[in-house]
Amino acid sequence: MTAPTKDALVLFMPSGRRGRFALGTPVLDAARSLGVYIESVCGGRGICGRCQIQVAEGQFAKHAITSSHDHLSAFSETEARYVAKRGELAEQRRLSCSALIQGDLVVDVPQDVQINRQIVRKRAETRAIERDPATQLCYVEVEEPDMEKPLGDADRLLKALADQWHFDAPRIDFALLPKLQGVLREGAWKVTAAVNVGPSGAEVIALWPGLHNFACGIAVDIGSTTIACHLSSLLSGRTLASAGAPNPQIRFGEDLMSRVSYVMMNPQGREAMTDAVRDAIGVLIGKVCAEAGIAADDIVDCVFVGNPIMHHLFLGIDPTELGGAPFALTISDALHLRASDLDLPVNAGARVYTLPCIAGHVGADSAGATLSEGPHRGDDITLLVDVGTNAEIVLGNKDRLVAASSPTGPAFEGAEISGGQRAAPGAIERVRIDRETLEPRIKVIGCDEWSDDPSFAENTEGVGVTGICGSGIIEVIGEMFLAGIINADGVIDGAFAAKSDRIVATGRTFSYVLWRGDDARHAQDILILQTDVRAIQLAKAALYAGTRLLMDRLGIDHVDRIRLAGAFGNYIDPKYAMVIGLVPDCPLDKIAGVGNAAGTGARMALLNKGYRHEIEDLVRRIEKIETALEPRFQEHFVNAMAFPNKTELFPNLAAEVTLPVPQESTGSRATGDGRRRRGRAARRASA
Amino acid sequence: MTAPTKDALVLFMPSGRRGRFALGTPVLDAARSLGVYIESVCGGRGICGRCQIQVAEGQFAKHAITSSHDHLSAFSETEARYVAKRGELAEQRRLSCSALIQGDLVVDVPQDVQINRQIVRKRAETRAIERDPATQLCYVEVEEPDMEKPLGDADRLLKALADQWHFDAPRIDFALLPKLQGVLREGAWKVTAAVNVGPSGAEVIALWPGLHNFACGIAVDIGSTTIACHLSSLLSGRTLASAGAPNPQIRFGEDLMSRVSYVMMNPQGREAMTDAVRDAIGVLIGKVCAEAGIAADDIVDCVFVGNPIMHHLFLGIDPTELGGAPFALTISDALHLRASDLDLPVNAGARVYTLPCIAGHVGADSAGATLSEGPHRGDDITLLVDVGTNAEIVLGNKDRLVAASSPTGPAFEGAEISGGQRAAPGAIERVRIDRETLEPRIKVIGCDEWSDDPSFAENTEGVGVTGICGSGIIEVIGEMFLAGIINADGVIDGAFAAKSDRIVATGRTFSYVLWRGDDARHAQDILILQTDVRAIQLAKAALYAGTRLLMDRLGIDHVDRIRLAGAFGNYIDPKYAMVIGLVPDCPLDKIAGVGNAAGTGARMALLNKGYRHEIEDLVRRIEKIETALEPRFQEHFVNAMAFPNKTELFPNLAAEVTLPVPQESTGSRATGDGRRRRGRAARRASA
Repeated sequence: MTAPTKDALVLFMPSGRRGRFALGTPVLDAARSLGVYIESVCGGRGICGRCQIQVAEGQFAKHAITSSHDHLSAFSETEARYVAKRGELAEQRRLSCSALIQGDLVVDVPQDVQINRQIVRKRAETRAIERDPATQLCYVEVEEPDMEKPLGDADRLLKALADQWHFDAPRIDFALLPKLQGVLREGAWKVTAAVNVGPSGAEVIALWPGLHNFACGIAVDIGSTTIACHLSSLLSGRTLASAGAPNPQIRFGEDLMSRVSYVMMNPQGREAMTDAVRDAIGVLIGKVCAEAGIAADDIVDCVFVGNPIMHHLFLGIDPTELGGAPFALTISDALHLRASDLDLPVNAGARVYTLPCIAGHVGADSAGATLSEGPHRGDDITLLVDVGTNAEIVLGNKDRLVAASSPTGPAFEGAEISGGQRAAPGAIERVRIDRETLEPRIKVIGCDEWSDDPSFAENTEGVGVTGICGSGIIEVIGEMFLAGIINADGVIDGAFAAKSDRIVATGRTFSYVLWRGDDARHAQDILILQTDVRAIQLAKAALYAGTRLLMDRLGIDHVDRIRLAGAFGNYIDPKYAMVIGLVPDCPLDKIAGVGNAAGTGARMALLNKGYRHEIEDLVRRIEKIETALEPRFQEHFVNAMAFPNKTELFPNLAAEVTLPVPQESTGSRATGDGRRRRGRAARRASA
Repeated sequence: MTAPTKDALVLFMPSGRRGRFALGTPVLDAARSLGVYIESVCGGRGICGRCQIQVAEGQFAKHAITSSHDHLSAFSETEARYVAKRGELAEQRRLSCSALIQGDLVVDVPQDVQINRQIVRKRAETRAIERDPATQLCYVEVEEPDMEKPLGDADRLLKALADQWHFDAPRIDFALLPKLQGVLREGAWKVTAAVNVGPSGAEVIALWPGLHNFACGIAVDIGSTTIACHLSSLLSGRTLASAGAPNPQIRFGEDLMSRVSYVMMNPQGREAMTDAVRDAIGVLIGKVCAEAGIAADDIVDCVFVGNPIMHHLFLGIDPTELGGAPFALTISDALHLRASDLDLPVNAGARVYTLPCIAGHVGADSAGATLSEGPHRGDDITLLVDVGTNAEIVLGNKDRLVAASSPTGPAFEGAEISGGQRAAPGAIERVRIDRETLEPRIKVIGCDEWSDDPSFAENTEGVGVTGICGSGIIEVIGEMFLAGIINADGVIDGAFAAKSDRIVATGRTFSYVLWRGDDARHAQDILILQTDVRAIQLAKAALYAGTRLLMDRLGIDHVDRIRLAGAFGNYIDPKYAMVIGLVPDCPLDKIAGVGNAAGTGARMALLNKGYRHEIEDLVRRIEKIETALEPRFQEHFVNAMAFPNKTELFPNLAAEVTLPVPQESTGSRATGDGRRRRGRAARRASA
């Protein structure tokens, strides 16, 4: 071999890492020396076809034998073999083990992950998830036993992994030893090892004879209501299947605190709930495997997120301490476990990673959402809110992050609201109120038309209009405020009863008739009572006060971006969130729902171990604020009860809607002039 | 506090480490800063009484309040409390956490371990086992939960261990999490953690509320015939109890190869043998706990040694590959496991360490014996032999070690010998033959008198003389050779039949009547047949040839020390081992039996993790020689069949006994002169 006499500059995207390499260096080797992760099961032997790259610059004629202008070596026979296998090597792609550097290059490492596509579409920014999974497949050729050098078979396997894959002092899971000799001989001393790299080093956790070119992982978000499970290829990063199921713990208690009570009251309560959630996860694993057509044995890594109580119950830990101050977690740091510790029906050697919990009320789910939304990655002050019975709030930017939870109660989920219900067909999810006539238009889940569309009645036939869900409540309260029906203090103005029969007296207060039931069908009217307005005011004031405390801690009076996570955050209209004062004033295009951000964070931690370090470090750095201990919380809470109507204080909101004219005192009547102004503005706003 | 203005020189023994310390420094702190291990459960808080030292120099008046001549601070109230508790602080001792350095000192760290006392008595050299166990008890005070700093309870425990005990990034066994919060609260945030330090770092493996001032470990030698279990305090190092039991695998096969065959022939064979040995170990654990009066829960560390097949079967690994070339071990390196992986009835979090295997036929037992006997620690060339069905041989010194196994067969264990039996009451263990009359004197196990003592018959009444065990065979063959009954080639000389009726014709060869049975009691004669002599010749030649190969490899023609390990090695008389040519010529006072050296090595690894590193590093360095692959083995073997009779070649042997005059050819008769010379010398030798 002739030693190369020149070198070339190679830039890898999207990581941006670059270096100079001798001509003739395989691109894969160059990538590795820079710490750029390119998949390769076979370690550069040209037999797995995984190490694909695209070359963005440096012209090369794909099928030409050679060309003096090429910056990469000519297409190899190995690569031709993968092109011949339909679909295994796409147009424009090369195998980085086979393609040799011949000149300056910009190399694209394709990021096949399309994580959370729906959300990506909603957002201005998208971000490729670079891959570097904690568990990777490594094909190795192991030395045969030699009586003169009587190292054990496992020792030679580990030596091969150290030599051929550069692991530092790898170990092997004891559970693999009984089958090790059989696998090595079946594979004629060529085997594929799944190697997990964790805080205690590299360990072989699964083993197959010969080349085993496929491995998966699951990312699971254990919500108190719903469990969501995503199956991803650890090699391509692609999501192969997703499935969700209700959390069966609901039968022990609807909300978190009732589940903690159940544990406290029942000797076997903890165990029953642990079994229930693990069983449900087992069923979901079976579902996603069936959907993707893979064997559960191919699942070698699992990542879990959940709020602290779900986290503890899943792990088999009594959550009683989380039920009262000081809300002590058993463990807050990330955990690295074996799937067998949790009886999960996956590969016997599979590993489990749980994201860290931020605090006793701010769980691994918030950590996952933080990882996904990345407030710590930019200069913009980002407010990340996950609304549930407790709102979990994270605020800040790359310099500093603060977090708290705020006791919003269940109003946003439709509980404690007279006509409230869970989001299900028949539930009102959108509301517009005519500023003049005060007549509403509604949309219900399961029907694409608004209620003023002629086909609405027909299309809701059978299901009917059954109640109002979280996003509908936010909108109707917001519309009632914009229409002047309720004033800034939240009082339904009885004076409107004279103008519209939608405003009716109910006892000593007034209500708004949002939907008239059909007596013939025993369908009741859906009313927004004064108590419903109060419930929403309490909930939104709690959330706002929590946010405000965090803003105080950072010494800021506005935020640059708002991210609403979770199902509720995904469905509410950001505009109405701002109208009712759920979130601080912010440019509307900077507010977005981000869906199951916690699950997205779990998938990120599954596909790239760097994200595990990132969130662990970050969680240690996040400043935690316990709202109950803050003297100013009550003050903020009281102030936040009102609806925002001062244009100068809410410039972004005022740019979107015409705010009602501020009034002097609670219960005072609007003047005719005021009403007219509000009416005109409201028509624009609700258009 | 006033900063000390002077310092003093402190020397710690037996480690010899020294350093200068500011006056006023607690001795415990000084020891720690030098890496000298002194037990302390409470970490210097004066509540465990474990950190005892003795001061060899530096006068101090024990009960005086102060003295200007003291080199240690005056006896403290804390220390007085331990003196008051009878026996907890002996005369001459101080608590190193309480005693402050006031001047130059020589500090003795007491090594309470009396490891293998019986063996120590036999040997010229003794060596204190310094302690630094892999698992240690650490009393910590944990911060209480704080809503403002919502670290989990486990995280705060780990932080306390890092802060107060200087562990680097300690972890906690997942299995402890469910009970963690209860223990912390029961102990009012003061707990004792058992922390194991292994290759993947420090991990909390057990936890008790408050101060828990006691922890044990077991060291187990799994022999193919016998399992021996020793219980030691991890704090004092003292052996609290020992117990042994037959290996129940014997019912599946008497020797190792028949057990491998059983696995190969029976689908459930491996599992049955694994269960059998683990059950037996469980019973032994129960026994030692009962004897010492401790709870099995206090056993937090376990060390195991055994030959490769015992090692594999205990771990649940199929040993089939060890049954034939290339004798591939599944794993040769040391293993760090959980006791729960092996279903051992000890503390749920207890750890298990198995010493490394040297080669397919040279197991963790040989590694243990090597660790115990330490050929690698000195300049002397040491030959370490463990005689069983295979002899495991290690040879060398600190510069270089070589190892091999040699197929001696079972002759030394009494098998394949006409009158052979296991060492048990009634078995002949010592033999002397009168050089003139050729009459034997014998000793049997269970009777202190020789057979020419008048009380012998009475004292063996009931048991009788039932056969001959390994050490007896060696002696009778050696005596027959020294008496001239067998020549250097091993032929029983029929010419003696004329002189003594002890020599009788049996078919075409002659035999020696060692013991005359009593027909009235149906007790048979015990004869040494020509085939018995041949069997011993084959066995000793195999061992000698193996040794010779190793000597060739090192390029040496003599050894400085010989250590005979195992039960056989412990009972045979080193002189006769040399007479029959079992071992090379060596000064007799340099040959010693060392008993269960493998078990001693296991105890060393239990009490000091440094020995684990030492043996792991050493085993990697040992050069392994496969006798079957060495062309010269056969040549050495043939040469070694003869008995040593050339004074110039065996100077050390010749200094101890009068060797028969070399004869010219096989079967040639000794001259009368020769016989007389031998007779005179033999009387001296057998005196």
